[in-house]
Amino acid sequence: MTTETKLVRTQGVTAAAGFRAAGIAAGIKASGAPDLALVFNEGPDYAAAGVFTSNQIKAAPVQWSQQVLTTGRLRAVILNSGGANACTGAPGFQDAHATAEAVAAALSDWGTETGAIEVAVCSTGLIGDRLPMDKVLAGVTEIVHELAGGLTGGEDAARAIMTTDTVPKQVALHHSVASGENWVLGGMAKGAGMMAPSLATMLVVLTTDAVASPDALREALNKASTLTFGRLDIDGSCSTNDTVLLLASGASEIRPSQSDLDDAVLRVCEDLCTQLQADAEGVTKRVVITVTGAVSEQEAVVAARAIARDSLVKTALFGSDPNWGRVLAAVGIAPVTLDPQRIGVSFNGSPVCIDGAGAPGAREVDLSGEDITVVVDLAVGDASASIRTTDLSHAYVEENSAYSS
Amino acid sequence: MTTETKLVRTQGVTAAAGFRAAGIAAGIKASGAPDLALVFNEGPDYAAAGVFTSNQIKAAPVQWSQQVLTTGRLRAVILNSGGANACTGAPGFQDAHATAEAVAAALSDWGTETGAIEVAVCSTGLIGDRLPMDKVLAGVTEIVHELAGGLTGGEDAARAIMTTDTVPKQVALHHSVASGENWVLGGMAKGAGMMAPSLATMLVVLTTDAVASPDALREALNKASTLTFGRLDIDGSCSTNDTVLLLASGASEIRPSQSDLDDAVLRVCEDLCTQLQADAEGVTKRVVITVTGAVSEQEAVVAARAIARDSLVKTALFGSDPNWGRVLAAVGIAPVTLDPQRIGVSFNGSPVCIDGAGAPGAREVDLSGEDITVVVDLAVGDASASIRTTDLSHAYVEENSAYSS
Repeated sequence: MTTETKLVRTQGVTAAAGFRAAGIAAGIKASGAPDLALVFNEGPDYAAAGVFTSNQIKAAPVQWSQQVLTTGRLRAVILNSGGANACTGAPGFQDAHATAEAVAAALSDWGTETGAIEVAVCSTGLIGDRLPMDKVLAGVTEIVHELAGGLTGGEDAARAIMTTDTVPKQVALHHSVASGENWVLGGMAKGAGMMAPSLATMLVVLTTDAVASPDALREALNKASTLTFGRLDIDGSCSTNDTVLLLASGASEIRPSQSDLDDAVLRVCEDLCTQLQADAEGVTKRVVITVTGAVSEQEAVVAARAIARDSLVKTALFGSDPNWGRVLAAVGIAPVTLDPQRIGVSFNGSPVCIDGAGAPGAREVDLSGEDITVVVDLAVGDASASIRTTDLSHAYVEENSAYSS
Repeated sequence: MTTETKLVRTQGVTAAAGFRAAGIAAGIKASGAPDLALVFNEGPDYAAAGVFTSNQIKAAPVQWSQQVLTTGRLRAVILNSGGANACTGAPGFQDAHATAEAVAAALSDWGTETGAIEVAVCSTGLIGDRLPMDKVLAGVTEIVHELAGGLTGGEDAARAIMTTDTVPKQVALHHSVASGENWVLGGMAKGAGMMAPSLATMLVVLTTDAVASPDALREALNKASTLTFGRLDIDGSCSTNDTVLLLASGASEIRPSQSDLDDAVLRVCEDLCTQLQADAEGVTKRVVITVTGAVSEQEAVVAARAIARDSLVKTALFGSDPNWGRVLAAVGIAPVTLDPQRIGVSFNGSPVCIDGAGAPGAREVDLSGEDITVVVDLAVGDASASIRTTDLSHAYVEENSAYSS
């Protein structure tokens, strides 16, 4: 039996059967740009799982969605840009709740009996302000009538959740078997800064027409998140609003094996990660930091993250400067086992530091391209891990010093 | 008995009796700027203590100086800018050793019998290259003849250790008692970037004419370093070369109490810290982050450091933007106990977040001045701590992307 898989970036949350979506301008953003998105699961199944920020300060929509996800079931996800509804106290939580109630009422009016407990809420934007609820609630009533399948609905939704993103991010994986047992997993993402340490100011909605239990979805999503969004580290900051949701409609009537499901979720998350990294705020370089020779995978992650977060490393990479000493200084303060006499570093495959000292030609390595790989061998074990990051540029400073003002 | 103390910033390592110093251009820097400094203790005592980088990757001069300091005795400190002699392997350590030998030989020729084991070595500059030893050794021979007391020697030395510093940093504390039992503690510092988490690419030499044992010096220096240099955090990076040395000549014949000594070392270190912060790379704002209401002082330090290192907080401050949500997002990922419903934040004394939500007028707080204070109340205990930091500016990115190229 031949299995084929194909990734398509022109499709997103509506690539899988049983899903409709929409994106509209509800007036939440002063600019008039699209700012409200709805993803709707037509069933027949409503299994769902979620992963949320590890930040102790959780936005109201995160608190709401974590609560509704305990049922393992979702009919719809309402997402807004233009305001994070974070640090807004009890009134902010009531706003998130009221939004879910409004979505449930609108969907019920539209002919699909839905309860607020089946509606997840995601928000992104500035922390600390209440949402303009008159606009949100009017938008909810309107958006239900815009729900569409096919490519349009998914792309509209992907555009409506953008903040400082410059392009919408979506992808779909088509899983085809010669016998005709085909199923699809698609998704959309937003997030351009504040990506780390475990998630991003990142909203991700994944949809599949596969048949899968909430437990199966949770397992696949947890594994994939750890290896992808959890290892994307743009600036060491971690949002109050990070949310990754996975909804299954069962519309294909195919129940994939756990390993096929794991693989599909991982590949879609990996692809969305690459898109997030490429569009991160002020990016001029896409950087992958790989640490090898660590005593454990966890120490490899800690070491790679320490390098990925080091401002002096990141500014050197912005300047295409093969200043490997900063890599050593950065990894030297990480709480990991290493051997200063045997540690090695290479940039783009060229050794620049061997056994803790400079290699011939180290200062001449060409880092002028947009993609840079840094490999650090701690020389004390067999474990390895990679963290994706970016450089630290003038554009990053510019964008982030002017964000709220 | 009246005790008076006075801080004077026009004096440094030669303010205390028994010390001479010099700074010359030895040709280590391609620019021809001063790059070699010597601090010489004429005695009668030679007690000394040191604090070194916690980075696992330690430069050759740090390894050398840590070794000689085990004797609790130093006659001289030789310092160079223009090269860190870090990650230079065994040959680099031999270079540090050879430099100490050369200083000892030159001082012996000059009439003061000295061994290499009485000479500490400090280096600062680019990591990874060997020093031009012909120039270092010729410079050592020359600099011994330039040793001078008074103000000139100390200021020349303070200038010769500068890298990206824009001004020399020195200060002296005069401790006067009506009975005439006067003693002095002075010092110089360099360091402008890479300040954190425990020390900086920072070289500090302190000298005193007080009589004090190596243990007394060590106790005073450890306490002061923890509270000052250890809480100065510019960019989360920590150097391979950080060194703080304290030398006592005993020339005043006054033996201060431990608490007077502790106090003097603390005050001189605090003042040097303020100077380092003000001259940090690309600084436009001097920021003090204070965390109160923590369950322990250690948690207060961890929380304040997490905020001080957050790129999104630092870019907002560069933009004079009272974006307090970023402060909450930053402290929320710190591994400390806090109460999201009761946490409070104020900027420059104005409350911007009360009980986890925005305060009226929060977006209008004026942060346009050069000094910004951020106070975060975790609302779970009684402990507090402060970290000094700076903003993250275009100039920081510029300076650090062009440093080695």
